[in-house]
Amino acid sequence: MPRYKLTIEYDGTGLVGWQRQNNGMSVQQAIEDACVIFAGQEVRLHVAGRTDAGVHGLGMVAHFDMAKNIPANKVQLAINHHIKPHKISILHCEEVDEEFHARFSCIERSYLYRILCRSGRPALDDRRVWWFQRELDVEAMNMAAQLLIGHHDFSTFRASQCQADSPFRTLDELSVERVGKEIHVRCRARSFLHHQVRNIVGTLTLIGRGKWSAEDLQNALDAKDRAKGGETAPAYGLYFVEAKY
Amino acid sequence: MPRYKLTIEYDGTGLVGWQRQNNGMSVQQAIEDACVIFAGQEVRLHVAGRTDAGVHGLGMVAHFDMAKNIPANKVQLAINHHIKPHKISILHCEEVDEEFHARFSCIERSYLYRILCRSGRPALDDRRVWWFQRELDVEAMNMAAQLLIGHHDFSTFRASQCQADSPFRTLDELSVERVGKEIHVRCRARSFLHHQVRNIVGTLTLIGRGKWSAEDLQNALDAKDRAKGGETAPAYGLYFVEAKY
Repeated sequence: MPRYKLTIEYDGTGLVGWQRQNNGMSVQQAIEDACVIFAGQEVRLHVAGRTDAGVHGLGMVAHFDMAKNIPANKVQLAINHHIKPHKISILHCEEVDEEFHARFSCIERSYLYRILCRSGRPALDDRRVWWFQRELDVEAMNMAAQLLIGHHDFSTFRASQCQADSPFRTLDELSVERVGKEIHVRCRARSFLHHQVRNIVGTLTLIGRGKWSAEDLQNALDAKDRAKGGETAPAYGLYFVEAKY
Repeated sequence: MPRYKLTIEYDGTGLVGWQRQNNGMSVQQAIEDACVIFAGQEVRLHVAGRTDAGVHGLGMVAHFDMAKNIPANKVQLAINHHIKPHKISILHCEEVDEEFHARFSCIERSYLYRILCRSGRPALDDRRVWWFQRELDVEAMNMAAQLLIGHHDFSTFRASQCQADSPFRTLDELSVERVGKEIHVRCRARSFLHHQVRNIVGTLTLIGRGKWSAEDLQNALDAKDRAKGGETAPAYGLYFVEAKY
């Protein structure tokens, strides 16, 4: 029974997130429904990261098994054909051995968070960036961000509904840089807690606005208390970039 | 009576183009309707480039006169407030003297055309790029493009409904370059004929696909006949970038 690894791009706008739910269309359901048409059977997708409603995917990875043996490039074409009009696209499909697991074999996940600072609200990037009417202090944000790199108890940046056994995670990268009118926050780790990236970004903007110092960030981390962190950044500025195996 | 110069970004998807029409919402109508609310009078916009339905604006320029004297930054905020939910944004507003005219004072207009070459159809950039499933020969396209630079009779690349008096135009720049998975065609001139950029881009893709040589392009230009040119590239890959004064 062949196993297929998919690399997926999607626009999270209007979707209820990765995971199949009763209240709307999910990325999982859209792809599984497309597969049924040519696989002639139900398939079940396993994914590297279950993104929230509104979060986008640039290179999400998922896998599924199928009884029929169809060449990988044909699987890509078939899903892309049947998945219209959803803004979801299979960028790559390859056959992998049965030891590969999109979730459990993943050794690194990376995210991008896009912030736009300018006086006019986003038109082309509406629902694609978090908009600030004024500049943020990017250097201060990037300096403070370094405090969060490494192995820490991230309870301050963990959603209350997070189901992970441990609040400890190891952040390998957290960088904040200016890219034209935008600020890009890049984040890399083996795995993340629920809302961890959005809670970190929301807190870093307090530093960008001059409301918090780096010391305030350190104190918030040490408090291990979600109530001591900043707001959760909106889902629509977040992009799942890549999963490494 | 103060005159205001606007710099405008818009997502052309779902709009009937710049110009006010009976069959749907236009950029002109959306902005004029927003102005009426705070100006307390009808206003009339004049624009640097009347883009077609589906074409996007990154830095379109327009002007209008208003009896009330309101600070330019307040005009920007007011239009952006009243123009929701249209994906149109005033990036900048400034007061200009009465000799300024968005259309007649403009000395240079520039456009960007985005082409995406990859196996998977665009998800995040759906209706934002012209998608090709296979690579195009960017070097051949760029080499051939140089033949069109300068002062020529562009009848081969002119829409039949074009209302310009003369088919002559002077192209100051026409470059084709790879940017990641995309190909960007950049075009700069004092003014353009109707559909000129889209007809040039459509014809250049014949060279990119190896169907035409540079000599074929030269023959097409010399023919001064629209029927000898390539297809019109889709509107949604085109962006009005900038107007210079």
